Amino acid sequence: MDFSASPRAADLTARVAAFIAEEVDPVEEGYHRDLAEQRRSGDPWQPLPVLEELKAKARARGLWNLFLPAEHAGEYAARFGTDGGQGLTNVDYAPIAELTGRSAIAPLVLNCNAPDTGNMEVLLRYGSEQQRTEWLEPLLDGKIRSAFTMTEPGVASSDATNMEATAIVDGDEMVINGRKWWSTGVGHPDCRIFVFMGLTDPDADRHHRHSMVLVPRDTPGVKIERMLNTMGLYDEPLGHGEVSFTDVRVPLTNVISGPGMAFEIAQGRLGPGRIHHCMRLVGLAEKALELACTRALSRAAFGKPIANLGGNRERIADARIAIDSARLLVLNAAWKLDVGGPLNALSEVSQIKVAVPNMAQQVIDLAIQLHGGGGLSDDFPLAGAWTQARALRLADGPDEVHRGVIARLELGKHGARR
Amino acid sequence: MDFSASPRAADLTARVAAFIAEEVDPVEEGYHRDLAEQRRSGDPWQPLPVLEELKAKARARGLWNLFLPAEHAGEYAARFGTDGGQGLTNVDYAPIAELTGRSAIAPLVLNCNAPDTGNMEVLLRYGSEQQRTEWLEPLLDGKIRSAFTMTEPGVASSDATNMEATAIVDGDEMVINGRKWWSTGVGHPDCRIFVFMGLTDPDADRHHRHSMVLVPRDTPGVKIERMLNTMGLYDEPLGHGEVSFTDVRVPLTNVISGPGMAFEIAQGRLGPGRIHHCMRLVGLAEKALELACTRALSRAAFGKPIANLGGNRERIADARIAIDSARLLVLNAAWKLDVGGPLNALSEVSQIKVAVPNMAQQVIDLAIQLHGGGGLSDDFPLAGAWTQARALRLADGPDEVHRGVIARLELGKHGARR
Amino acid sequence: MDFSASPRAADLTARVAAFIAEEVDPVEEGYHRDLAEQRRSGDPWQPLPVLEELKAKARARGLWNLFLPAEHAGEYAARFGTDGGQGLTNVDYAPIAELTGRSAIAPLVLNCNAPDTGNMEVLLRYGSEQQRTEWLEPLLDGKIRSAFTMTEPGVASSDATNMEATAIVDGDEMVINGRKWWSTGVGHPDCRIFVFMGLTDPDADRHHRHSMVLVPRDTPGVKIERMLNTMGLYDEPLGHGEVSFTDVRVPLTNVISGPGMAFEIAQGRLGPGRIHHCMRLVGLAEKALELACTRALSRAAFGKPIANLGGNRERIADARIAIDSARLLVLNAAWKLDVGGPLNALSEVSQIKVAVPNMAQQVIDLAIQLHGGGGLSDDFPLAGAWTQARALRLADGPDEVHRGVIARLELGKHGARR
Amino acid sequence: MDFSASPRAADLTARVAAFIAEEVDPVEEGYHRDLAEQRRSGDPWQPLPVLEELKAKARARGLWNLFLPAEHAGEYAARFGTDGGQGLTNVDYAPIAELTGRSAIAPLVLNCNAPDTGNMEVLLRYGSEQQRTEWLEPLLDGKIRSAFTMTEPGVASSDATNMEATAIVDGDEMVINGRKWWSTGVGHPDCRIFVFMGLTDPDADRHHRHSMVLVPRDTPGVKIERMLNTMGLYDEPLGHGEVSFTDVRVPLTNVISGPGMAFEIAQGRLGPGRIHHCMRLVGLAEKALELACTRALSRAAFGKPIANLGGNRERIADARIAIDSARLLVLNAAWKLDVGGPLNALSEVSQIKVAVPNMAQQVIDLAIQLHGGGGLSDDFPLAGAWTQARALRLADGPDEVHRGVIARLELGKHGARR
Repeated sequence: MDFSASPRAADLTARVAAFIAEEVDPVEEGYHRDLAEQRRSGDPWQPLPVLEELKAKARARGLWNLFLPAEHAGEYAARFGTDGGQGLTNVDYAPIAELTGRSAIAPLVLNCNAPDTGNMEVLLRYGSEQQRTEWLEPLLDGKIRSAFTMTEPGVASSDATNMEATAIVDGDEMVINGRKWWSTGVGHPDCRIFVFMGLTDPDADRHHRHSMVLVPRDTPGVKIERMLNTMGLYDEPLGHGEVSFTDVRVPLTNVISGPGMAFEIAQGRLGPGRIHHCMRLVGLAEKALELACTRALSRAAFGKPIANLGGNRERIADARIAIDSARLLVLNAAWKLDVGGPLNALSEVSQIKVAVPNMAQQVIDLAIQLHGGGGLSDDFPLAGAWTQARALRLADGPDEVHRGVIARLELGKHGARR
Repeated sequence: MDFSASPRAADLTARVAAFIAEEVDPVEEGYHRDLAEQRRSGDPWQPLPVLEELKAKARARGLWNLFLPAEHAGEYAARFGTDGGQGLTNVDYAPIAELTGRSAIAPLVLNCNAPDTGNMEVLLRYGSEQQRTEWLEPLLDGKIRSAFTMTEPGVASSDATNMEATAIVDGDEMVINGRKWWSTGVGHPDCRIFVFMGLTDPDADRHHRHSMVLVPRDTPGVKIERMLNTMGLYDEPLGHGEVSFTDVRVPLTNVISGPGMAFEIAQGRLGPGRIHHCMRLVGLAEKALELACTRALSRAAFGKPIANLGGNRERIADARIAIDSARLLVLNAAWKLDVGGPLNALSEVSQIKVAVPNMAQQVIDLAIQLHGGGGLSDDFPLAGAWTQARALRLADGPDEVHRGVIARLELGKHGARR
Repeated sequence: MDFSASPRAADLTARVAAFIAEEVDPVEEGYHRDLAEQRRSGDPWQPLPVLEELKAKARARGLWNLFLPAEHAGEYAARFGTDGGQGLTNVDYAPIAELTGRSAIAPLVLNCNAPDTGNMEVLLRYGSEQQRTEWLEPLLDGKIRSAFTMTEPGVASSDATNMEATAIVDGDEMVINGRKWWSTGVGHPDCRIFVFMGLTDPDADRHHRHSMVLVPRDTPGVKIERMLNTMGLYDEPLGHGEVSFTDVRVPLTNVISGPGMAFEIAQGRLGPGRIHHCMRLVGLAEKALELACTRALSRAAFGKPIANLGGNRERIADARIAIDSARLLVLNAAWKLDVGGPLNALSEVSQIKVAVPNMAQQVIDLAIQLHGGGGLSDDFPLAGAWTQARALRLADGPDEVHRGVIARLELGKHGARR
Repeated sequence: MDFSASPRAADLTARVAAFIAEEVDPVEEGYHRDLAEQRRSGDPWQPLPVLEELKAKARARGLWNLFLPAEHAGEYAARFGTDGGQGLTNVDYAPIAELTGRSAIAPLVLNCNAPDTGNMEVLLRYGSEQQRTEWLEPLLDGKIRSAFTMTEPGVASSDATNMEATAIVDGDEMVINGRKWWSTGVGHPDCRIFVFMGLTDPDADRHHRHSMVLVPRDTPGVKIERMLNTMGLYDEPLGHGEVSFTDVRVPLTNVISGPGMAFEIAQGRLGPGRIHHCMRLVGLAEKALELACTRALSRAAFGKPIANLGGNRERIADARIAIDSARLLVLNAAWKLDVGGPLNALSEVSQIKVAVPNMAQQVIDLAIQLHGGGGLSDDFPLAGAWTQARALRLADGPDEVHRGVIARLELGKHGARR
């Protein structure tokens, strides 16, 4: 059980920390102010220019596509990654993800944001050469963005077999119909490609019914119906959209790994993605606790710093325990993934998916409370952070489904068949 | 310990229920849709016409200013209230407040919304005849609206002695300086009058240092700096503003009950106000539980209605217990207030201020979770409801301060002096 | 919703309070010391003489069998009750139960302890004249004691249909076989009669399969296998036993209300019994909070009374809220029972069965923590109190079963059939 | 952050697992039955012979004194330890401690039980040669046992400065007076030596006022006043005693490391001791979860295994998350202790002291609930396990004190001086 980053990863982590301190932190407050202004009197979906500037700086420092997995990065690590390197293990990348999670823009700036990282990984592992040339390379290059369209508004998507959207083989074409929502990333003007998941063959065995298909955004029949908000926030410039697909036709060569392979691909995609999500949330919670401590020491009431009133110190202690526990759980899941692959880490990945967003929600809520009314406003990044943590209790599978997985594995040790 | 409403109150409650079912429910979804549209392409602070239409209908049905307290309503109950009646006790009004809390617009439509109710009560109890004629009557008439400006951005307002804004006597004028925020109601175009609280005499005893002053919104030196949002929501058309007061001068006759009387007035204001807030939250939680049950029965996953999966039934049961407990606690506080006044209900009022928003937050969170992603969007009233509950854990005193009051009284029974 | 006790009940409550203060409190500590001594060097199942002395004093003061229900007390209230009175409603009796719950011996001393009260109620409502003469009268007279044998060691007794013990009609006899445990009361030397529940007709409809039978303890084939402890405590002199029944024969006239009627009887028995249990726990929690406050004020650490350290005041406040909520919930269930009978209070009775023991556990745990190591020892009544609360989360149906009932009723409002 | 055990430690861990499976598990149930019998009709403080038999077997297998710390074991590891080895690091020993924690007797049998391990460590690190020869060697040899007397009944011992017992230098003697309780181990007939802590010089600086003194049990003036129980359990044969010291005189050479050094010694003693305690609790919780799963699968209600009812699977999942989090936190504290000593692990050690007993309490409570009434009896080891976890929330410093340490360190990062 060795959670130590390699020397190369430790060096990269330090460099990411320096980059964020020197380039991101100084502009972040202004970024949010400008974005708020653009919301009032402009088009918030038009990315602010500072993002491209920061991307160039990050790339120049060799801090680009750090998410590339050691196992599958192959030639791409050398061409689009850092220092001609080989990609990082999950344990190596975790502390970097934590650092980027402290900032609302760092993931984007380092080309390490969801859902693009997951989509790139899918293409790395399962994409044809043509698919990789056409879509993976510009994604790695930061020239285009992508979306992942799976969840549907009409059914309980926590059960994948509920999926109603279809991807039907018709000669050498795939015909796509259905309605998706919470498709993250579709708001960005550079979002050129959707990874679509739909039902292909209802008669196949449970794990070979669905396909994953690359659908260019400008294909006829694709329509972004609206952008959705979570607790009032639209998460510009990526955003979450509701998208309808009406008799959309793409060549069969756009199917990833062939019809019926969506389940297998999704399994491989989700493990590392959940590590990233959770580790970013650990960073976000750490940031919130810092803000909480700073505020608690700088404001006074009843003759004392707020920190010294009532149960505040106990809650700060509990937050520290909760964050450290969560980080260790994520590192453990990352390590199990590294040493034995997804099937070795099923329980552990579900564990962090339950534990980390709940932890983050609790820590951020404490920070909000210590900030008083201001904590709920956009004067501080806390309301947005809370919303992000809350949304993660539903995105990528609700808590309840993950608890079900953990319990099934636990009871399985004692002979339960499911 | 008798929590039964009087026959007259029971009749009014039934009529309010009918009014909401017949007039409010059918238009509420459209109201929110229109407001969202106005946010995108108009001025959301311009109240939608349906509000005035509903106000007229409510008044025509004799459902107007039902909040008027039996004790202080006096002649006003006859002139502006219902059925020439005498105002209601807290126990009588509580079930009505619960009903209005189920809707985002019902309180406004019945002229029973915060902060106007609290301000009207202050004027009823402590206003001079002139103040009542000039401000109370148009408020009761629904012609103007008001705001309450107390909390300040620069200090921890949980401790009232931190207040930095000043109201200094200068001859026959009050000179007002300072900055307030979370001033609810200032966004409404009809908001004509602010109840301002500031420091008058730092050398007076702790309970006679501050004054409450009526400041017309258009007085020179009054500036609404910005509107604040909570978790991204602006609560139009009332809203919460940050307001600066720079050398604002009003006649001494605008001081309520004389200089130095703010503390006493605030004490009287807060008890019933907290009952109203909390009872509305009980209604909101009840509404959320209804939505949760409906959704849990209508969506299926893994071959069953969601209601029958995992711990969902247990959580629904816990929500029922939590709501019923909370309602009983509020009724108990209302009853103690009715039979013995504010000093008789100090602990009870603080108890509900802690218990009810936390309960509502938990119940609404469950409803969100059962709605999946949609629960976080504005397709359902849940995200807004959650935000309202969360904000109440800070507004009118944070949880921690109220827990402090309860503990002081509890330990006082065993000899602790404070 | 009127939770006020009648004047007669209020008078009785005051007299019970005085009796406990004057007669019980002064001897209680000594009672526990003597019992501990008897455990070391005697027979703890031999009741200490002080109990009979106190019973005589209570009866002399007219404080005897106060549990007698207004509805069913009939002539017995006059003969064995108080002041020739008529029995009390649940709302009337609740505050008395709360008072007795503060003491480990008061319920016994007032002839108001479980399981005898429940058994007496069963005989009052369903017993034949012969049964009442033979068993009810001496029970009301405090001459004998009884036990209730339902739960079984070999199956999950939370599901009554699991019951394996049998009560088979054989001519004019009932033949009884099976093994029961957690049979409360069997340790007492005066325990002369068991109310036994067993399967009579597996082919009858679900609600008419079981019978309730009066089995004198000295019937051949009845054997007390052992006494059980909860967390090390035996609850002498009543105790909880494991009892085997081997070809036990009693006359058919010992069946209560006829074969197959156990389900109906059990339903009627449980409502008031749960009110009593829960209200006693409210009293116990109230007592624990008093001890907690006293200790927190009298011990100092780091230069302050413990009460003023960290989150202690907040926890004391939460305890106050929790106790008051719980009491109101019980009063509400009592009131619903009084005005509409058991079917009117199904959810409410299950609500208190879940909420109250959990509340008591939490409050008592706080009191233990504030007492430090001593809180876990028998120097204070807290460890025993905690165990009592914990046991109630299982006795009379585990939390989970009651949550199931509440959820079924809640979802039923929205059309769910079960 | 490397939590991997060394190959030698991994081998020892496997051998301990085998020993427990082959020698301890088969006799444990009988051990508890015999002990219960001895409680009823004998002297439970007389250790059962099986303990000495198992000790001999463990030693023969080379599984003896495994707690010996790599850093300080020195020659003793070779003479009294395992395989002529060098002692283990905290990370190495943690999995062994977890295994022993699953059994109530394994720690004793491997000579690895508290408080002897802590006392031996103190003598290893701070004992004079004479002290080591006289007391350490027989302890390592398993010939005698020891107790640690620090906590006092008359004051809040969470604040060490409250300590009232004295150890006064009088010529070449130490004169000891005072009363201690919760002195673990004093019940064992082989307990020959007490480590006593008392006030020597009230005028010295805060960290040099107290001394630690070796007091042979049979010194005149030492009296074991009584044995204490926790929730009714006496933890025979070690037990927890209340001990009075009246004008007890021992030679100055019995002072460990010289007068005034108690604070420094205590600091060094507590880190590893808390690792051991917490890791044993992790094992105990793991055992409880196994019992819970087994029971949940083997009992049925309402037509299903209990495991599949309501929220049981979710709770089992939460228990798995909680145990794994707790284990990782302990390993992290152990690793920080190993790489940087006690000062490097202050927060981490306090974190586990808070988190692990609370976790264990929750997991064991779930196991109790799934066992129904039996879970509270001594038919299962759960009630005892729960009590052990609960007691650890007070022993070695209450939760609140440890939360205070964590918060002080956390706020210290942001400039708070204390």
